[in-house]
Amino acid sequence: MIVRDFNEIIESDRDRVVSDAQWSSVRMLLADDGMGFSFHITFLEPGSEHTFEYKNHFESVYCMKGSGSITDLATGETHHIRPGVMYALDKHDRHILRAEEELVMACCFNPPVTGKEVHREDGSYAAPENVEA
Amino acid sequence: MIVRDFNEIIESDRDRVVSDAQWSSVRMLLADDGMGFSFHITFLEPGSEHTFEYKNHFESVYCMKGSGSITDLATGETHHIRPGVMYALDKHDRHILRAEEELVMACCFNPPVTGKEVHREDGSYAAPENVEA
Repeated sequence: MIVRDFNEIIESDRDRVVSDAQWSSVRMLLADDGMGFSFHITFLEPGSEHTFEYKNHFESVYCMKGSGSITDLATGETHHIRPGVMYALDKHDRHILRAEEELVMACCFNPPVTGKEVHREDGSYAAPENVEA
Repeated sequence: MIVRDFNEIIESDRDRVVSDAQWSSVRMLLADDGMGFSFHITFLEPGSEHTFEYKNHFESVYCMKGSGSITDLATGETHHIRPGVMYALDKHDRHILRAEEELVMACCFNPPVTGKEVHREDGSYAAPENVEA
């Protein structure tokens, strides 16, 4: 059994905290935990806007706190995001995520993220076999 | 892209809400969503105690609200559960989960739950191929 505490990670296990322009993510579970998915608590700064397209991953995102919106770039449709709203990128959907207030999101990735990915220019992460160890 | 709202499910999509003795679970994502995992928001009643052993699934559980404890029945070790604590049953660990206050948990299952499972006497769910459609 693995037991991890978000608050302890924030204080003393900063290797599990990944930050980029206007977002940061606490990696509660990664590929090497062997669960077959990874699980992250992700923060998006108020006023920020992000274009992502996880070509090699499925991702679900559950809003725990904050408000914003997501636009599906294939359909142009925009959905309001508030606590309780979940979106799932079952078609590796290219999208724009906007935070009006700071968003706090619980995210699952399949295949699991290794923790070494960086967002590429197209908004994707590399497939697991192409991430440098 | 799939978008679902916990609050709308509670009001008008009760097929996604599964209840058993002293717990209930809102199934935000299930096997037929094709994500490779399922994602549930699960409530455990204050004062309740549950023995589970997911012999056929990996499960991670992130505490969003409440307090309680988990005992690993292989080691006898007990961990306090409060918001921010996650446990992951990477060894299909048989365990006892206790809610002191109501626990609200974000749960991921791999393989994904179909929504038709029932807890068997041993605290497990059947493997996906053995769940009646």
